[in-house]
Amino acid sequence: MKILNTVAALREWRASVPGGKTIGLVPTMGALHLGHASLLDASERENDLTIATIFVNPTQFNQSTDFEKYPKTFESDLAMCEKYGADVVFSPSSADEMYPDHFLYRVSEHQLSNELCGEFRPGHFEGVLTVVLKLLNLAKADHAYFGEKDHQQLSLISGMARAFFLETKIIPCPTVREASGLAMSSRNLRLSPADKEIAPGLYRVISDFIDPLQARSELERLGFRVEYLVDREESGAIRRSVAAWLGEVRLIDNVRI
Amino acid sequence: MKILNTVAALREWRASVPGGKTIGLVPTMGALHLGHASLLDASERENDLTIATIFVNPTQFNQSTDFEKYPKTFESDLAMCEKYGADVVFSPSSADEMYPDHFLYRVSEHQLSNELCGEFRPGHFEGVLTVVLKLLNLAKADHAYFGEKDHQQLSLISGMARAFFLETKIIPCPTVREASGLAMSSRNLRLSPADKEIAPGLYRVISDFIDPLQARSELERLGFRVEYLVDREESGAIRRSVAAWLGEVRLIDNVRI
Repeated sequence: MKILNTVAALREWRASVPGGKTIGLVPTMGALHLGHASLLDASERENDLTIATIFVNPTQFNQSTDFEKYPKTFESDLAMCEKYGADVVFSPSSADEMYPDHFLYRVSEHQLSNELCGEFRPGHFEGVLTVVLKLLNLAKADHAYFGEKDHQQLSLISGMARAFFLETKIIPCPTVREASGLAMSSRNLRLSPADKEIAPGLYRVISDFIDPLQARSELERLGFRVEYLVDREESGAIRRSVAAWLGEVRLIDNVRI
Repeated sequence: MKILNTVAALREWRASVPGGKTIGLVPTMGALHLGHASLLDASERENDLTIATIFVNPTQFNQSTDFEKYPKTFESDLAMCEKYGADVVFSPSSADEMYPDHFLYRVSEHQLSNELCGEFRPGHFEGVLTVVLKLLNLAKADHAYFGEKDHQQLSLISGMARAFFLETKIIPCPTVREASGLAMSSRNLRLSPADKEIAPGLYRVISDFIDPLQARSELERLGFRVEYLVDREESGAIRRSVAAWLGEVRLIDNVRI
């Protein structure tokens, strides 16, 4: 497994891949868990070569404390990339490596990105779309893998790929959950022991309660500070999305109900 | 020469080009003149195949009257593309063809794009960058050709290509002028006979007058309504950029002084 820290090195490696070899891309911010493992696994099965990227993208954090406290577990991330079949890990040595333009050039979306998480995290999806476009352009992959836990992000990235006529196919991968039902997330590492006990209630409540207002009340009763809990029609079914805080940790989840 | 009207047809053609063939892209809004011819000519010399695109991009017009009155000369445009060696003309049959997303996804720049023309044409460069990114992604060209008459546009497109790690090299081509000195522009077609006499004064004055304030006064004396006239340092020299109106027609030009 190669570890590359510069855009130049990634481009050089990419140029050396023979035509006809298929490539899968798994963009991550590190702090890898079994959710990421499932993306790497899907990529490994469906492509000749897999590029994993590890980059805590500063432009998608609307709160600097969240950026600073984002878990960093680089050595175990590399071990997981190796275990799940990555051929290349691209881990830019600095933000300037990804932003030679100092974030002057941006990709934005003007509808969905302002709703749900976008309403509470201004600028978040602009940062996400911009960095993902850059990674897609560098990797020139056949497939790129994203988890359904971040369903709004997945929708926006898929929309960007269609709007900009990108060649890479965006592949959604099912949310991976702990035995308790809690959606795997890097931010779970920051939960206190007491909050870790409460956290599985998020999935249980949004799955079990039919009425969204009752679901919201029940979450609040359990100790969550609910940011939003919204049911939306989506190709004939309803998707319920939620964001809620436990202490200083913001959790999101979604289910089709 | 093939004429293609859909994204699907362009993608199909592009996929049929054997690896190793080089491709040049010449994006235009039609109403082709000898400035465009010089771009086609450069592309023809430097590439195996040339794609010309003709698309009056609605998202870059900040005034709907300017969009409606933009000259349309499709038959003579095709003749010029053929004459100057285009292999493919991509002329999308509708705006929806280029904007399946209805312009929800956009590329923006947050400094230079707000200055000079950007100050007076809000949203203009967002429309330009977005459509050019789409065309670059579809063409997957080795080189793309843009005229220096639109120097700010050229700078922004070059900046976008670097920021987003695009593979296509952006090639600047010198401004082509009429014998009078007037920079060739599709909008020159809309000048009244009297204004056509005055118009060459734009280039003459910005080239001859050392002091920018005197240049501005002289243009006003000639009958121009000056929008901006700005001298800026640019890698050791000074570039003077100007935008000025004659009647309902907005002309731009720039020189290194």
